[in-house]
Amino acid sequence: MSSSAVAYAKKNHSRFLDELKALLRIPSISTLPENKDDCRHAAEVLVAELKRIGMENARLIETEGHPLVYADWLKAAGKPTALIYGHYDVQPTDPIEEWLSPPFEPTERDGNLYARGSADDKGQVWAQIKALESLMAANGALPLNVRVLLEGEEEVGGEGIASFVASKPPELKADFALVSDTELFAPGLPTLCVGLRGMIYTELEVRGAKTDLHSGMYGGAAPNPFVSLAQMIAKLKDENGHILIPGFYDDIIPPSSEELAAWESLPFDEEHYRKTEVGSRELVGEAGYSVMERTWARPSLDVHGIPGGFIGAGAKTVIPAKALAKISMRLVPGMTPAKAFALYKAYMEKVAPAGVDIDVRLIHAGDPCLIPVNNRFVQAATKALHEVWGKDTVFIRSGGSIPIVGDFDRHLGVPSVMMGFGLPDDNIHAPNEKFHLKNFELGIESIVRFLEESAN
Amino acid sequence: MSSSAVAYAKKNHSRFLDELKALLRIPSISTLPENKDDCRHAAEVLVAELKRIGMENARLIETEGHPLVYADWLKAAGKPTALIYGHYDVQPTDPIEEWLSPPFEPTERDGNLYARGSADDKGQVWAQIKALESLMAANGALPLNVRVLLEGEEEVGGEGIASFVASKPPELKADFALVSDTELFAPGLPTLCVGLRGMIYTELEVRGAKTDLHSGMYGGAAPNPFVSLAQMIAKLKDENGHILIPGFYDDIIPPSSEELAAWESLPFDEEHYRKTEVGSRELVGEAGYSVMERTWARPSLDVHGIPGGFIGAGAKTVIPAKALAKISMRLVPGMTPAKAFALYKAYMEKVAPAGVDIDVRLIHAGDPCLIPVNNRFVQAATKALHEVWGKDTVFIRSGGSIPIVGDFDRHLGVPSVMMGFGLPDDNIHAPNEKFHLKNFELGIESIVRFLEESAN
Repeated sequence: MSSSAVAYAKKNHSRFLDELKALLRIPSISTLPENKDDCRHAAEVLVAELKRIGMENARLIETEGHPLVYADWLKAAGKPTALIYGHYDVQPTDPIEEWLSPPFEPTERDGNLYARGSADDKGQVWAQIKALESLMAANGALPLNVRVLLEGEEEVGGEGIASFVASKPPELKADFALVSDTELFAPGLPTLCVGLRGMIYTELEVRGAKTDLHSGMYGGAAPNPFVSLAQMIAKLKDENGHILIPGFYDDIIPPSSEELAAWESLPFDEEHYRKTEVGSRELVGEAGYSVMERTWARPSLDVHGIPGGFIGAGAKTVIPAKALAKISMRLVPGMTPAKAFALYKAYMEKVAPAGVDIDVRLIHAGDPCLIPVNNRFVQAATKALHEVWGKDTVFIRSGGSIPIVGDFDRHLGVPSVMMGFGLPDDNIHAPNEKFHLKNFELGIESIVRFLEESAN
Repeated sequence: MSSSAVAYAKKNHSRFLDELKALLRIPSISTLPENKDDCRHAAEVLVAELKRIGMENARLIETEGHPLVYADWLKAAGKPTALIYGHYDVQPTDPIEEWLSPPFEPTERDGNLYARGSADDKGQVWAQIKALESLMAANGALPLNVRVLLEGEEEVGGEGIASFVASKPPELKADFALVSDTELFAPGLPTLCVGLRGMIYTELEVRGAKTDLHSGMYGGAAPNPFVSLAQMIAKLKDENGHILIPGFYDDIIPPSSEELAAWESLPFDEEHYRKTEVGSRELVGEAGYSVMERTWARPSLDVHGIPGGFIGAGAKTVIPAKALAKISMRLVPGMTPAKAFALYKAYMEKVAPAGVDIDVRLIHAGDPCLIPVNNRFVQAATKALHEVWGKDTVFIRSGGSIPIVGDFDRHLGVPSVMMGFGLPDDNIHAPNEKFHLKNFELGIESIVRFLEESAN
């Protein structure tokens, strides 16, 4: 099926890429207070572009954090309404010294565009907007009704959008959502993500002495919060990757045998994955579960950093007064953030060593979710993807969390199509993040065709 | 016994204090590269002052790190030679926000002088120099031969002075050393320290993936170096304060029953110590040992900080590629740094979890030591202290490490008199370090009288 919008996209690809680079130059790191203005700037650029391509009601929607971006076009009477979601905020850049080119100076190398946010998620957001531009420019109208909702807090828990969605505003009435924040299972393999892990992100604070003490004078009598914290973390997860929080696994709904069989048939080379993606001496995790099961269908627990204490060069012989660990857990279908956090908090309070006080804080949370694959929009997506990529779509899950998908479902009754164009080695959340240039191009065409198909 | 030098010290006390404040304003933090010039500046100020008061051969002695300060006065024919030691470098100031007045702006409050380095050790060094000035000014000569040797790397392992002492230079020929870097057991109680713990300061590095990874995508399959590090630390020390390194306690020489009995009779209120010095919910450590035994005569293990990973505000869902722990152990008589490090390293390599590579590095080391109390210089010290403080001297140990004391003994055969004037609550190595003004004053007088007595 030919599409004049696809032709328009092909013809304008070079300009689209230049525009994306401009967006990537804005350091919209949502977690850092010093980048607050940059986040707003990125949002304003998106509003302006949505207006320019012919969307209506384009505007910022203020939240307690970074603003949402909204626009719509609702003139396709009798046609379904798509709710298009992405995020304009990005992860921090540390460790900055490991970047081969500056994170906010987009650089093309080997068919890829390197920049913080290139794959996660500005490149995908720009593919959505450029698909809308192509449809509008080629036909003078969109084939269906469209609402665009972009957020600037996806990397920090997305509280603003969560509150907004929970308020069930009329602006979000839609038949389905297009969420572009995922990846292909392998290069060239069209992929729809139909399951996500949820999460709880926490801080565990341990306090010992009232002030920092000299480790010579007090070592052996004063509690050391870093040692206590280590002892507590060691009680959270054993060396086989098993989480030791009592009751943590109780409510898990395992994947069906059909789903497991489909995962088995995916092109996956564990040794290649270990070597090129992870690069560790060996993979770890629960025995008896494949890598796909461990990362998609089993909960996990990670420590992200342990601020406090002496972290400079050289030596300082101090017993720090307190220590803090940033600890998150990924949750799978059947689990809820509220129960997982309650179990974790109670367990930490129970195993805290003598001499220290602890404080367990929930920083943010997201529900796990599973998408039914038998609805017409998923079917439209597979048809569009087959045309653009020439292959059948594979259905996978992701180990990551996109809390908005659960929110759309729970509050709006809107099912999501998670059609994303990242690749497993895109280094999202890490130095040298990239977006494959070909995926940016075919991503735009896939979204054009998906929206056209969804209109039928 | 009257002393015209003591009278001179009393008369000039106000000037002495102003001079000390000037020295304290120099931020000579030895561990931070950015304060390198400040360390040299402090050393130059000391050289100039030693010249000014009449010492000879005053000069810097270069090392690979911060310079040593040397001066002598050797005209007391037939009299013994004192080697006077102290250090001009100071600890870092973090956490800076907890200081009530700026660390390098000396401030008098409640009879104390608050500043980084006030007690550890610039205040004590200045007491030594002002004692020499008083003796010289009052008598036109010193009562015995004196060599002064000050270092600028005490807080970072003291490698420069260790090499210099190990070379057995003629400049260090002496009959005894006066080391002023310790504290009184209680306010107003004259104290000589006759035992020190040694130490090994180490870095334990754990590496997992080749780069930082997204904890959603990879959590459950990729090794997490922070979790591995916590598991390893938990295997180093149990919750009863017992160090779990095999063989670690094998060579310890316990204190004699006489020494233990003397410790028992010291004025010590454990609950007061817990509340006002440590300020923790409870004290910790090995059952069956008093606080004095735990901190003076038993080895200890502390974690000082765990750099790496995400330590910013908010949330970053990263599995860091590596983690590092700064870990030190205090050693007691019978133990050697070499053996302790070898046992520790072998044990860590044995218990490292699957999936990670580790690296165990020794940053610096110091021998434990015990001083015999029956020599004439210790006797002279107790006599001098009794005159100035009006009380009998108590003999204690310190849990801290002053490696130079072991070096003086081993390389030069010179016994040390550890006569220091800090107080247990001086917050050395912590925010709001202070030096009790009365102790500065009586410290100068004590050193004057000690040197006069030692000449007899």
